[in-house]
Amino acid sequence: MNIIYVDNNATTRVDPAVVEAMMPYYTENYGNPSSMHAFGGNVSRAISKAREQVASLINASPDEIIFTSCGTESDSTAISATISSIPDKKHIITSRVEHPAVKNLYEHLAKKGYKVTFVPVDRQGSLDLDFFYDHLTDDTALISIMWANNETGVVFPIDEITRAANDRGIVLHTDAVQAVGKIPVDVQKTNVDLLSLSGHKIHAPKGVGALYVRKGTKFTPFLIGGHQEKGRRGGTENVATIIGLGKASVLAEELVKTGMAKVGRLRDRLEKGLISRVQNAMVNGDTSSRLPNTTNISFEYIEGESILLMMNELNICASSGSACTSGSLEPSHVLRAMGIPFTAAHGSIRFSLSHYNTEEEMDFIIEKMPPIIDRLRRMSPFWNQGKPANTMLTGAECPL
Amino acid sequence: MNIIYVDNNATTRVDPAVVEAMMPYYTENYGNPSSMHAFGGNVSRAISKAREQVASLINASPDEIIFTSCGTESDSTAISATISSIPDKKHIITSRVEHPAVKNLYEHLAKKGYKVTFVPVDRQGSLDLDFFYDHLTDDTALISIMWANNETGVVFPIDEITRAANDRGIVLHTDAVQAVGKIPVDVQKTNVDLLSLSGHKIHAPKGVGALYVRKGTKFTPFLIGGHQEKGRRGGTENVATIIGLGKASVLAEELVKTGMAKVGRLRDRLEKGLISRVQNAMVNGDTSSRLPNTTNISFEYIEGESILLMMNELNICASSGSACTSGSLEPSHVLRAMGIPFTAAHGSIRFSLSHYNTEEEMDFIIEKMPPIIDRLRRMSPFWNQGKPANTMLTGAECPL
Repeated sequence: MNIIYVDNNATTRVDPAVVEAMMPYYTENYGNPSSMHAFGGNVSRAISKAREQVASLINASPDEIIFTSCGTESDSTAISATISSIPDKKHIITSRVEHPAVKNLYEHLAKKGYKVTFVPVDRQGSLDLDFFYDHLTDDTALISIMWANNETGVVFPIDEITRAANDRGIVLHTDAVQAVGKIPVDVQKTNVDLLSLSGHKIHAPKGVGALYVRKGTKFTPFLIGGHQEKGRRGGTENVATIIGLGKASVLAEELVKTGMAKVGRLRDRLEKGLISRVQNAMVNGDTSSRLPNTTNISFEYIEGESILLMMNELNICASSGSACTSGSLEPSHVLRAMGIPFTAAHGSIRFSLSHYNTEEEMDFIIEKMPPIIDRLRRMSPFWNQGKPANTMLTGAECPL
Repeated sequence: MNIIYVDNNATTRVDPAVVEAMMPYYTENYGNPSSMHAFGGNVSRAISKAREQVASLINASPDEIIFTSCGTESDSTAISATISSIPDKKHIITSRVEHPAVKNLYEHLAKKGYKVTFVPVDRQGSLDLDFFYDHLTDDTALISIMWANNETGVVFPIDEITRAANDRGIVLHTDAVQAVGKIPVDVQKTNVDLLSLSGHKIHAPKGVGALYVRKGTKFTPFLIGGHQEKGRRGGTENVATIIGLGKASVLAEELVKTGMAKVGRLRDRLEKGLISRVQNAMVNGDTSSRLPNTTNISFEYIEGESILLMMNELNICASSGSACTSGSLEPSHVLRAMGIPFTAAHGSIRFSLSHYNTEEEMDFIIEKMPPIIDRLRRMSPFWNQGKPANTMLTGAECPL
């Protein structure tokens, strides 16, 4: 299928060089890295190399990298490790726009007796830092704020947040799943304690993630079992995908240095093209602090799902809200937290690019989107001859 | 490297047909199964098919299968789900010979206030059923007993244990990681509530497992995040390895019906050949109730690690104790629980076969092992001219 894939914040194409690096571990090198024999030992050495590669991507030491099965497991491990290690403190600060991997866990913990403060964002999706500072307490065990938002691409002031945590001796976790591989992430410059990343967002396969744990950070395992990962994560290693994550990290390091600028130009071309050609279209999220690959555009008065279906007919793959929350007809919790009007939140489309995208693809989307929007608006009860039909709904914010 | 691989209880060769089934999901079909577009939807359908294939292998319904990242995660999920769902009961029954994936978690829970009863085994590695029945109480939340032991291959009376649990309304979990794919496992015939299995023990890749959850069994997720697996396990699916597990399940179903008999004959050939040619060699584990692919042989008065190293020189890959506990010089907890004398437990080698093994390989091992054992014994302080040198150690049981 010849598709135009602009859904890279959901998942990415596995780089062919990554697949090539993995293949020997699905064929001749199938040993268990824990085995005594050389056949297993070779595999163990390959994992060590991958650990160095992942560490290098974020300027960590290899010993600080724990391999996991996905970003969600990295997040759960970070959070569980912290609250198990600091049982006396019962307050957690996070944001209202975290990924479901984090958000749902905090909602669960809130039911279990934790006090969880969800820091709001403004209409641009930027964190309310005053609120954040006002809610730091002596009982705060953990601050967990994403580095960049998956839906809008808004990059949070993680340096400042980390300094605030460091100054107060509070553990700082960041879900950097969307930031890593798109913008520079350096744990020496940004002194986070725990950082989650995911393979399938950086052209490695699904099913592998990593958790950075700064040396000296209190830690207790989440997945208790064998001695793997130096006793920090039981379970036989997902060898091939770990090797793949290593290779993808090498490629991502290079992409961040050179390739993402091109992606940013493509994104800007797409965004400007759409905004200039479609009436009542607006960009969601602070464009001054944003991932280079992401634009979230609201096409007012129509349904994102309908837009996606018509895009799908043209083999254009994008997303409305986060793929991880699809299946729900509710507008995205991120756009709701931003106070995007109901009529705009429902019609939002996230375009998330990669270096595989081309100018021709952007121009194709720019050409095809206006008639799609036009056709859907002609069917919309909220749209009448080029104008909103029901002004009652305009500007009404979505209830949270 | 042309190796003789008899370490299949540690991990298995990925079947080439499994790799072939997986490959499209590392290349053209890289969509996220949660995405709205058809590109993601196709992937979602492939996962559904894999779920049917895994369900079929154990005669379950597809809805009862949750994909996980490994056997350890399946075990942790089963145990965590049960104790979270039944918070009032604080007693767990397991065995002294469980895999570290289970054993270490129960030891952790014992420190956290759970009363954990570890059912002992006899010299043949068979469960002490009287002890088991004697320790069932009204406070028992969970019985968790492996279906077959990874080190000795001993198959436990899981039917009887399950009936005992069912009769008392106690949740029954079984770690069937070593049983599935080697002997018939049918959850309609054996009415377990929760069953763990692992891909890389049945010629699927490492990094994927499944948990069977009988319909109606109380369940709370272990990995909390997105809506995947119907809200029972957050995190983007490890698509390719799930497809691989599906294909491997189809192959395993066939192997259990027809192929394992051949494996059993190879194992018997190897076992008889070694026992008849090596003095002071003995089989550990009840040979009347054992997996067809496993034999655990003690070569008395020498070190298993030394034996493995010399086997390694000949490219024969086997294991001493469980690979998952390697790195330790302690004899295996399984052999210690069986009361195997110290001098025998240290020199135990597990040979675990697969249908890829051949008669020629068995004959090669039978030919090469006696001189290895002989050479090591000549260096052993406990062995003198064909007889144990230090009878003080003979028969002394290992301390637990």
